[in-house]
Amino acid sequence: MATKTLDDLFHETLKDIYYAERKILKALPKMARAAQDEQLKAAFQQHKDETEGQIERLQQVFEIIGKRPRAKTCAAIEGILEEGEEIMEEFKGAPALDAGLLAAAQAVEHYEISRYGTLRTWAEQLGYAEAVTLLDATLQEESKTDAALTKLAKKAVNSAAQTKAA
Amino acid sequence: MATKTLDDLFHETLKDIYYAERKILKALPKMARAAQDEQLKAAFQQHKDETEGQIERLQQVFEIIGKRPRAKTCAAIEGILEEGEEIMEEFKGAPALDAGLLAAAQAVEHYEISRYGTLRTWAEQLGYAEAVTLLDATLQEESKTDAALTKLAKKAVNSAAQTKAA
Repeated sequence: MATKTLDDLFHETLKDIYYAERKILKALPKMARAAQDEQLKAAFQQHKDETEGQIERLQQVFEIIGKRPRAKTCAAIEGILEEGEEIMEEFKGAPALDAGLLAAAQAVEHYEISRYGTLRTWAEQLGYAEAVTLLDATLQEESKTDAALTKLAKKAVNSAAQTKAA
Repeated sequence: MATKTLDDLFHETLKDIYYAERKILKALPKMARAAQDEQLKAAFQQHKDETEGQIERLQQVFEIIGKRPRAKTCAAIEGILEEGEEIMEEFKGAPALDAGLLAAAQAVEHYEISRYGTLRTWAEQLGYAEAVTLLDATLQEESKTDAALTKLAKKAVNSAAQTKAA
């Protein structure tokens, strides 16, 4: 037990985010279908394409550390996506649905930002220079997605509030 | 169903983060006990005190919207904290334990940052000016905590790597 090193932690966390990304890939088309706003639908679709690229990058990182790509159940993403599902059910057809979907998507983004930030720091320390580049590329993408969602979120609350006033 | 508004969404999400904060309050002393580094122990202890203040602010926000403070199970925080528990078990006594604890704590911070960012945007739209101030105060605290943890994380990986080399 006491011999577990940063290398082990890096590998474990890689398996965790690999699982998470594949779950997110499955959830995004559902979120795109549920979204009312066309721009939001498009954003979810675009993020699905990005997620495919991010999964490929993770496979490359596994290769760099000499391991086969394997997923390990990530309880965090299960919980985060479960909350998204609840929103889709409880706010189906409601004016606030898009605002809720956006909140769920931003919770997902922040989980990923935290994980990729951590993995990048560890990869630097462990001397996996190529992995640092790959993880950083994904981290930049996730941060951009989060910023784009924040913009859409402001639009969504305006529209929800207008529907309320109407 | 279709009448659910942004007000409902705000109230639901408030109950969600209220549950999350109380769970975090219980988890922090455990994480402080598990941490090996004295500075990290102190950081978890300090964040526990902050969390108490954040819970009080949430109670004030409930009051502002004319509701009684009530918690609603937050699957996301359950999952995030579960991953922290796994780290504590699997890396007990290991050189990489603190790095793992920090990763878990940063995942918690990012969840909170995403939720408080969302709630602040909604409170603005809904015209709850006082709530905006309260939510923003917590959001600033969480962001500061995340930055402080990032610093400690760099220290922790150095120390884990040294132990490995020794």
